[in-house]
Amino acid sequence: MTRTIAFPGLMMHRPLLLKEFAERAETVFAGQEVVGYRGGRRVTRTLAETVERARRLASSLSRLGIGVGDRVATFGWNTLEHLELYIAVPAMGAVLHPVNIRVHEDDIRYIIRHAGDRIVFVDDSLSARLPRVEGVEHEVVMGGGSRDGALDYEELIAAGDPSFVFPEIPEDSAAAMCYTSGTTGAPKCVVYSHRSTVLHTLLQSLPDLYGLRESDVILPVVPMFHANAWGLPYAALMVGARLVLPGENLAPEDVARTIAAERVTFAAAVTTIWHGVAQLADLPDLSSLREVVAGGAPVGEALLRRLDELGVPVIQGFGMTEVNPLLSVGRPPARLEAGSAEWTSARLSQGRPMPLVGVRVDESVGGELMLAGNTVASAYYDAPEQSAERFTGDGWMRTGDIVTVDGDGLLRLLDRTKDLVKSGGEWISSVELENAIMSHPGVLEATVVAAPDERWGERPCAFVVPRAGAGLTAEALREHLAGRVAKWWIPELVEFVPEIAKTSVGKFDKKVLRVRAERLTGGRD
Amino acid sequence: MTRTIAFPGLMMHRPLLLKEFAERAETVFAGQEVVGYRGGRRVTRTLAETVERARRLASSLSRLGIGVGDRVATFGWNTLEHLELYIAVPAMGAVLHPVNIRVHEDDIRYIIRHAGDRIVFVDDSLSARLPRVEGVEHEVVMGGGSRDGALDYEELIAAGDPSFVFPEIPEDSAAAMCYTSGTTGAPKCVVYSHRSTVLHTLLQSLPDLYGLRESDVILPVVPMFHANAWGLPYAALMVGARLVLPGENLAPEDVARTIAAERVTFAAAVTTIWHGVAQLADLPDLSSLREVVAGGAPVGEALLRRLDELGVPVIQGFGMTEVNPLLSVGRPPARLEAGSAEWTSARLSQGRPMPLVGVRVDESVGGELMLAGNTVASAYYDAPEQSAERFTGDGWMRTGDIVTVDGDGLLRLLDRTKDLVKSGGEWISSVELENAIMSHPGVLEATVVAAPDERWGERPCAFVVPRAGAGLTAEALREHLAGRVAKWWIPELVEFVPEIAKTSVGKFDKKVLRVRAERLTGGRD
Repeated sequence: MTRTIAFPGLMMHRPLLLKEFAERAETVFAGQEVVGYRGGRRVTRTLAETVERARRLASSLSRLGIGVGDRVATFGWNTLEHLELYIAVPAMGAVLHPVNIRVHEDDIRYIIRHAGDRIVFVDDSLSARLPRVEGVEHEVVMGGGSRDGALDYEELIAAGDPSFVFPEIPEDSAAAMCYTSGTTGAPKCVVYSHRSTVLHTLLQSLPDLYGLRESDVILPVVPMFHANAWGLPYAALMVGARLVLPGENLAPEDVARTIAAERVTFAAAVTTIWHGVAQLADLPDLSSLREVVAGGAPVGEALLRRLDELGVPVIQGFGMTEVNPLLSVGRPPARLEAGSAEWTSARLSQGRPMPLVGVRVDESVGGELMLAGNTVASAYYDAPEQSAERFTGDGWMRTGDIVTVDGDGLLRLLDRTKDLVKSGGEWISSVELENAIMSHPGVLEATVVAAPDERWGERPCAFVVPRAGAGLTAEALREHLAGRVAKWWIPELVEFVPEIAKTSVGKFDKKVLRVRAERLTGGRD
Repeated sequence: MTRTIAFPGLMMHRPLLLKEFAERAETVFAGQEVVGYRGGRRVTRTLAETVERARRLASSLSRLGIGVGDRVATFGWNTLEHLELYIAVPAMGAVLHPVNIRVHEDDIRYIIRHAGDRIVFVDDSLSARLPRVEGVEHEVVMGGGSRDGALDYEELIAAGDPSFVFPEIPEDSAAAMCYTSGTTGAPKCVVYSHRSTVLHTLLQSLPDLYGLRESDVILPVVPMFHANAWGLPYAALMVGARLVLPGENLAPEDVARTIAAERVTFAAAVTTIWHGVAQLADLPDLSSLREVVAGGAPVGEALLRRLDELGVPVIQGFGMTEVNPLLSVGRPPARLEAGSAEWTSARLSQGRPMPLVGVRVDESVGGELMLAGNTVASAYYDAPEQSAERFTGDGWMRTGDIVTVDGDGLLRLLDRTKDLVKSGGEWISSVELENAIMSHPGVLEATVVAAPDERWGERPCAFVVPRAGAGLTAEALREHLAGRVAKWWIPELVEFVPEIAKTSVGKFDKKVLRVRAERLTGGRD
């Protein structure tokens, strides 16, 4: 702040730093346990032990020459060791860079080099997937095993100083960085500050967001290499909840089993996982669940109904890497009667933006959502051109999402700007059309992309995964759509497929699907 | 921040300002109602109307020459108009100064002059109590009625511009100021910044603190002229809860009636009020309550039990003007079984400090609690000597409270440093002794102060209000204490009184009681 303050407040101004959550946890939640799976093994550690190990780790990293502002990459599942890195690296003033293990090897090289990572921590089970990257000075293997020239994680812990003191740094310092998986173009890097992440942790824990508390048992199925596991590791630390880290056990049946075995109250995963859980033939006892969050792709009405029937209390989360990553949850306004049509519609919405995030809608481009706030990115790292496209001169971020906002402030995601179908000069929302298709009981999953069309410019093309034995036909589907969407929205092109291509973070891969749609119409081969 | 940042985060840095809660409320909670009582009248307004009136008010204040940093005093009950001032004054960059209506006229003069208030807003019903103070340029009467030379509140609203834009100011700017009632010495002034109050609002709303949400109906019985009504006006605005402002109807029977009539879910009041509610002969239906907070004085076990029996779910709040004002609530750790002795003991504790507030205990002065954090004062306004006593050179505030901290991080308030009784060179905790006394079923209220003693230096003197018809004797009470406290703690001096003197904010007035105890021992007359 360079502006003069007319009449200053007289309160302490202490930097908002992530280390405070660790310091709190080791003091007031010392005995709370964290559960971690690695392969078949289940290990528990107390928060006091966890934070002590993080101090040891920070001390060993310091001795290796890693200092304030240095980037530290991780390449691993959701494990106890990954949590220790989540704590130690930002707390010592270095910058945590979890690398998405599911992207192509070339992208991994690009990302690690672009970030300037000096050291990489890798799970033994993922070692074969991690290329050696020039510029990386040290590699560390977690979970035993070995790798040529690499250090051993437990040796670093053993050699570290348990009384290492986390330094005080400015709150706008980087805490972590995350490359967006990028459904288009090169990966872009968001750099979270301590301030933004501390505020995000407070905001996401509020009762009308995730409502996190000490009595919760939190299962982040969403990977720690993907948008900070939606902030749950830090939130669990702050509120003292029991954290369950599932390792590589992320299949729907694993998730269901872990919920039952650990009496999980709050779980977060991409929508696809909950689709999978809803289809399990033999569901274990999930009655411990208070709430599960589905994100990454919209939850359709059919999935919502199915999960309701199964007693899995689902809520939709909406966000993006650029907002740390939560913006809102689809919680119905308090005035609505539970079970009413309006209430269900609100559950299917993206919900209200969290406090302290400003919202604008740019109608000139079809209704693009724009955001501003302390939890919102201001630029991409070392990418001036991509930044200029996304961030306006007057302090707003373009999200690329087409939305409506109703009288209750509920956002409804209609589409991505680039996924709108422009047919005869008018917009068709691929998401609305997808929802209408997915409301057919014979549909398991569906997505819509634009296909080139000589007469109309573009026409929607639907890729549909039918439910086994439903005997679904394109004609039956079109009949189902009549009355549900405008007549000219009904797709001529309906392609039944056994599964839909997905990106590394579980979203429909519309890039791949657009190429396929183009082929179907003969536009490309 | 003047320090260079090694590797900066790339997130937007927007000042944390209270106006954001108002801007959120008028957008996403536009239709939510606020209920206000004034005398016998009950008025409701929507949040959209409320924020619009706040904009009008800010515009009229601007026209009167009130600008950024100027102090605006209020002298009123919890009303819709007071809420509008809570919004408008900080949002326009001016400084809200709610004056305690219960202090002596001389103190009122001193406080208004010391704060440099340029304008005073006064409830018509309190007009006679407010002296004219030199330096005040304007007076405004709220709720109709008139006062010589004063402006009318509704005329200011009518003349104001509903589209007044709240300015952007630095987050460390003052938002409000509050003079401590001061059980000793001259009133001291805490100046809350926007940053501290925004953070306090987030923190107090967390599930393990007050757990506030849109579906709540919040009744702040604690006055808006006392420590910002414990932050509830801003929290209600942020989460979109229904706020019920009770006006001057603050007697226990009024509080109970309002809870029943408005279906209140969350109410906050000083402990004395809940004592009163627990004694009402004819209790209305209070089943809407999710939780009530008791603060300002410890909740004894007897009161806790009685409220449990009545189905009033009470929790103890602990804080002080200097921490904005909440520090903790006596919520038992999740690991404890409800109903167990440890669980009850935790409910009687002051609880864990909220996140982002650091705690130290200075054993060299008997265990004084020291605090540091963004919600903690760094100095008193224009009071260098009092500030030097309270704030250390290395960034900590001395609270004057003697505490213990257990393995769960629960604070237990033993005493005020100045209320310890030093008998024969050893400390007696007046609060522990009070609790032991109050655990006798025949005791309604009790307090202990030090009385001078020739032999021991000091001895405890107990003032006890017996329950009507209980036939309590000093001898019976001493027998009750034997085994509960050390033998040498048992007071020789037990004085039965019909009521205990209280300060303007409902705390036992130990200043007055110490004088009386001294008289009883013949030390002064």
